[in-house]
Amino acid sequence: MSEPAREFETLSWTVDEVGVATLVLDRPDALNSFTVTMARELEHVFTVTAMDDAVRAVVVTGAGRAFCAGMDLSAEGNVFGLDESLSPTPEDLREHLTEEPYQSGVRDTGGKVALAIHALPKPVIAAINGAAVGIGATMTLAMDIRMASTRARIGFVFGRLGIVPEATSSWFLPRLVGLQQALEWVYAADVLTAEQALAGRLLRSVHEPEDLLDAAQELARSFVVDRSPVALGLAKQLLQHGAGSAHPVEAHRADSLAMFHASTGDGKEGVAAFREKRTPRFAGRASELPDVFG
Amino acid sequence: MSEPAREFETLSWTVDEVGVATLVLDRPDALNSFTVTMARELEHVFTVTAMDDAVRAVVVTGAGRAFCAGMDLSAEGNVFGLDESLSPTPEDLREHLTEEPYQSGVRDTGGKVALAIHALPKPVIAAINGAAVGIGATMTLAMDIRMASTRARIGFVFGRLGIVPEATSSWFLPRLVGLQQALEWVYAADVLTAEQALAGRLLRSVHEPEDLLDAAQELARSFVVDRSPVALGLAKQLLQHGAGSAHPVEAHRADSLAMFHASTGDGKEGVAAFREKRTPRFAGRASELPDVFG
Amino acid sequence: MSEPAREFETLSWTVDEVGVATLVLDRPDALNSFTVTMARELEHVFTVTAMDDAVRAVVVTGAGRAFCAGMDLSAEGNVFGLDESLSPTPEDLREHLTEEPYQSGVRDTGGKVALAIHALPKPVIAAINGAAVGIGATMTLAMDIRMASTRARIGFVFGRLGIVPEATSSWFLPRLVGLQQALEWVYAADVLTAEQALAGRLLRSVHEPEDLLDAAQELARSFVVDRSPVALGLAKQLLQHGAGSAHPVEAHRADSLAMFHASTGDGKEGVAAFREKRTPRFAGRASELPDVFG
Repeated sequence: MSEPAREFETLSWTVDEVGVATLVLDRPDALNSFTVTMARELEHVFTVTAMDDAVRAVVVTGAGRAFCAGMDLSAEGNVFGLDESLSPTPEDLREHLTEEPYQSGVRDTGGKVALAIHALPKPVIAAINGAAVGIGATMTLAMDIRMASTRARIGFVFGRLGIVPEATSSWFLPRLVGLQQALEWVYAADVLTAEQALAGRLLRSVHEPEDLLDAAQELARSFVVDRSPVALGLAKQLLQHGAGSAHPVEAHRADSLAMFHASTGDGKEGVAAFREKRTPRFAGRASELPDVFG
Repeated sequence: MSEPAREFETLSWTVDEVGVATLVLDRPDALNSFTVTMARELEHVFTVTAMDDAVRAVVVTGAGRAFCAGMDLSAEGNVFGLDESLSPTPEDLREHLTEEPYQSGVRDTGGKVALAIHALPKPVIAAINGAAVGIGATMTLAMDIRMASTRARIGFVFGRLGIVPEATSSWFLPRLVGLQQALEWVYAADVLTAEQALAGRLLRSVHEPEDLLDAAQELARSFVVDRSPVALGLAKQLLQHGAGSAHPVEAHRADSLAMFHASTGDGKEGVAAFREKRTPRFAGRASELPDVFG
Repeated sequence: MSEPAREFETLSWTVDEVGVATLVLDRPDALNSFTVTMARELEHVFTVTAMDDAVRAVVVTGAGRAFCAGMDLSAEGNVFGLDESLSPTPEDLREHLTEEPYQSGVRDTGGKVALAIHALPKPVIAAINGAAVGIGATMTLAMDIRMASTRARIGFVFGRLGIVPEATSSWFLPRLVGLQQALEWVYAADVLTAEQALAGRLLRSVHEPEDLLDAAQELARSFVVDRSPVALGLAKQLLQHGAGSAHPVEAHRADSLAMFHASTGDGKEGVAAFREKRTPRFAGRASELPDVFG
């Protein structure tokens, strides 16, 4: 395993020998609370660092006893980094989503991170080791799988502050736990125990604190060792797309193209290895996925 | 608590000191069965009465031993209130949804009620105290949370009458219980016990009959006391929108605007109160929500 | 019960006295593995044979000890039947979905079968008697209900071969088991036991091997005896459409039309029979459903 690179102020990043990266929210003295710097660094990690073909999957956890205690409210002034001189409308966001001043003055920073996680064509697993509150909870929703320690506490507490759940959580939460549970958790704005979150199907599994990170890394390795990065990346894209599309025929169009590309690429090696009862050696790269959605 | 107002023929309506309204389907001698009058009164309640800023949440229950035993089939003639001289097409409904004759002669009355419930930017909780059959079952789907008495019986029985589930239930039911369970319940057209409905995740919880209404009102109060009506209303809109939208980026646009408005409004008071360790005093009004969808 | 018709090479088909068809994947020596011939025959069954009004529901099972062991990889050459000389794009599939060469050279064969199952306006129940792997697993997702034997083994194993899940599974799987479970099963590419699949809500129920087919046929009969084929067909269409549509108002338009047609058709007989406390005699035909979506 490589030495932790401290190219980031708020994060640490390591990659093991099979390509499983561990991303640590690393401001333990501040309970890894979320700042504009952390947002920028997370967006960079998921759009640049983790796009390297040497990275096959990402596990996200927190340093110390918290996962992420939410937005850092200790800063003076406008903690959300919004430009209050603006009067944005739905049309502005539809037309000018990536332009200044919408980029920095209006767009939710948590949402930029969530969209970057969602777009990474590799498995992302949250290993929730402690408090995950506010953006600390919602940022995990765009990750593919959530595992937690018995000490985890998860809170969609926005309502207590007069604000709303963000980070694209309104798209993910109903698809993870159903509409009724999603509404109750957001209305209640309570902090859930790991058991409650497991019963509500938000979490995949709950672990002893000392076992959590190993379990998450082990699961990530089981997803990527001897697997095609192309098939894995396309599968993630297909399922996320399918969960939002209107009709199965849309899935059929994307399926057909993805299967065409996979079966004329890494799929040939996969079938050959299966017939020869040997381990496949896939040559495809996640950085070169075909566009199957148009 | 105010005296019950009997401005309605088929309903009663009270509002407690914190703004939790209790709406009673109040035709106990007819098991609160659904009529065209009840439909019109329910639509009025959710689009006018409950929109008053003094109302913070709505609990819906039935008088006597039933919740709502379905469409009143005792009436002579055309019980559904449809104009059989029409030959409506999908295009008619797309183009002329709110015009006569489509308003009264074609549109499903239960659906008008469901859309009114859905559009109310406040929590709505069903307290299902007894039989909830046909429209008595489907009208609860557009409510945010369903709690029930051990005596509740819930039936999507349309198939036994040669008709179909309505009241926008086809949008809600799969998002509440999954597609397989939704299809089976509708095909079977059986009456479910409270236990079965709980196991299928249609119900949030089941209570002793004497405890149900208190529990529902208590939950409603926990959602609204010391909370921003703006944040609550936006959160409901975001989650319902997110559950239907195609891609997380649509959630991001709406999230960003909702967070912008909340954090430059009630959110300022929320953060200040949090820092000062005091109870917030929110000034926002649900009647003045910004449009975050366009 | 009629004699099994062997008009098919790879399937057998019988219809009982109330219209419940049993479709058997019938290549037991090859574990009912999927071939281009089977795909063509399945598509024919669901678009032609099962459309006969005498057929009211379909139960699908496998001959011998497997349900369907996946794509038949024993064939030489291009097992997926794709034309590798093509370079299809998303636009091609959008514009030319039903044209040659896209029909045979690009489109996923499993997806054609899944779309045919989805479009049949009648209940379809999978009775998974043994191994259901690859396309053997995904083809069941477009069926309305999945029941299984304790001996069933279900595997979304595509990733092990360097290929992707197909047969429109990306639309169905998240709506059946939630997005987190869908992603994990596809990433893991493991073979699940019946118990695991039941816990994950993929299966409706698990049965002793000798009881499975009877239970599935009995459930199918309970859906169709004394029911309106029009109401049943519209209900299936409404729920599948609702599960994918963006907003409840889309459900309202379709609901309204479906209810209009049902209540001015078989619904009249249904209400009359209910009032007269007798069994209804419905005259509607599934082959004559109104278009409620436009």
